[in-house]
Amino acid sequence: MIPRPFEYRFTVQLHDTDAAGRLFFAHLFRHAHDAYEALMREIGQPLPPMIAAQTLLLPLTHAEADYLQPMQHGERICVEVEVLELRQRAFSLDYRFLDAAGRLAARARTVHVQIALEPGSARSLAPELRAALEPHLAAAPTE
Amino acid sequence: MIPRPFEYRFTVQLHDTDAAGRLFFAHLFRHAHDAYEALMREIGQPLPPMIAAQTLLLPLTHAEADYLQPMQHGERICVEVEVLELRQRAFSLDYRFLDAAGRLAARARTVHVQIALEPGSARSLAPELRAALEPHLAAAPTE
Amino acid sequence: MIPRPFEYRFTVQLHDTDAAGRLFFAHLFRHAHDAYEALMREIGQPLPPMIAAQTLLLPLTHAEADYLQPMQHGERICVEVEVLELRQRAFSLDYRFLDAAGRLAARARTVHVQIALEPGSARSLAPELRAALEPHLAAAPTE
Amino acid sequence: MIPRPFEYRFTVQLHDTDAAGRLFFAHLFRHAHDAYEALMREIGQPLPPMIAAQTLLLPLTHAEADYLQPMQHGERICVEVEVLELRQRAFSLDYRFLDAAGRLAARARTVHVQIALEPGSARSLAPELRAALEPHLAAAPTE
Repeated sequence: MIPRPFEYRFTVQLHDTDAAGRLFFAHLFRHAHDAYEALMREIGQPLPPMIAAQTLLLPLTHAEADYLQPMQHGERICVEVEVLELRQRAFSLDYRFLDAAGRLAARARTVHVQIALEPGSARSLAPELRAALEPHLAAAPTE
Repeated sequence: MIPRPFEYRFTVQLHDTDAAGRLFFAHLFRHAHDAYEALMREIGQPLPPMIAAQTLLLPLTHAEADYLQPMQHGERICVEVEVLELRQRAFSLDYRFLDAAGRLAARARTVHVQIALEPGSARSLAPELRAALEPHLAAAPTE
Repeated sequence: MIPRPFEYRFTVQLHDTDAAGRLFFAHLFRHAHDAYEALMREIGQPLPPMIAAQTLLLPLTHAEADYLQPMQHGERICVEVEVLELRQRAFSLDYRFLDAAGRLAARARTVHVQIALEPGSARSLAPELRAALEPHLAAAPTE
Repeated sequence: MIPRPFEYRFTVQLHDTDAAGRLFFAHLFRHAHDAYEALMREIGQPLPPMIAAQTLLLPLTHAEADYLQPMQHGERICVEVEVLELRQRAFSLDYRFLDAAGRLAARARTVHVQIALEPGSARSLAPELRAALEPHLAAAPTE
């Protein structure tokens, strides 16, 4: 069983920081994507063969982040990833970056749209992709 | 005279791309920040001495981007930067990434909040910073 | 007991690759540095407090790498790190990048020189740093 | 006429630096590759179509750098690029990173080997590539 929310951990490395002594904001998205790759691998939808075969691509159409606390060199961060929305041909993910004390240091969101490189296909998300993502949908419908 | 909107140009380098053959989404933010650094230099508010002296920091509290067209290796991109909003202690910037044909390939936005490291100061944006940013406000003169 | 050689593992992420479909060469050095940071943490000489306190710096004076096999998106790589040489005021590290089949995909080397920011000190490596690195010296003198 | 040595300029950006306040060593190689891409474009051998068509690849087999002076955020750096050696199926490039005062801050070297993806071809460097690189051979008084 994959825990829910899915957790991905990393340590803020020297190259993540800048001369201001904090994680450079753009690198947060690199870590968010690493968490996304880890989730996809866990749910049996690994990106590398998809991208190598070029049958299906899931490019980002939107990305955003809110920075609440600076992340320092050496900090251990836990990223909680959930599926925020599953739509016809797209899905969005929510990432919560928690520091060692469990405080929310940053939050990010990415939106992915399925592009099929073979014509005629893919008016909607691949069924096995949808089925794999569904258990990771954030919270209940009433929320 | 600095043209309005401020323009910053770059070429998509090999390291900007990924195995899917396009600019990796997180690198757009790196280029947005380069454009921001270039604008700040042009308007007489260069970041390097600010960060080195640590008297004033302008960390990002929010960043977002919309990706409309893939950007390929070797493409020459023009980034148009404008100030979207000037607030009491924060400002936001808008970045339009245009390809060689002038098509909008991506759009980004960053929000910066002034943090003064010396106590008692900086309830509001430094006056010379505000004055330098004002001519680059996107909006109309009546606003 | 820390195994010898010290091992650090990573997966080649999408952002590590470029449009040619392989790990972009410069990113190998980023991973080498991550392995170095992990080793230093393991041997009780973590870099973050050193850099934050600025009492001691260990900047690189040299870095090099040989690329033997392309590393693809999704590959799991094991980096074996050993101390190649311990000198008066410097040390060098050797990194072997092994793919899942144990084949050598790349090799790297970094040289670090100790700089003391307080005058009068540090004509030689800090004794506790030297003692911590010694057990990781590569192989015997007869090699 | 392309000046000799070929010159490529960049400014050290915030994301080039790390918490120690200097250019992070691995990023030097990113800039070296940007200089290489710029040289190849200038001499009529641009990398993007080569990589997109995958007829010819010039992967690096070796990279190295010596770091002589720290490069700070905001510094303007000039990279002088020369061809160090032209061999049967490989070539090497030399990069000198000069600061605004003309002091050598770092030096790098990359070795590239031609790989032809079509069988039967390319036992030697493509003639037009060789001809384009030759004028940039580093002076060789005795050679």
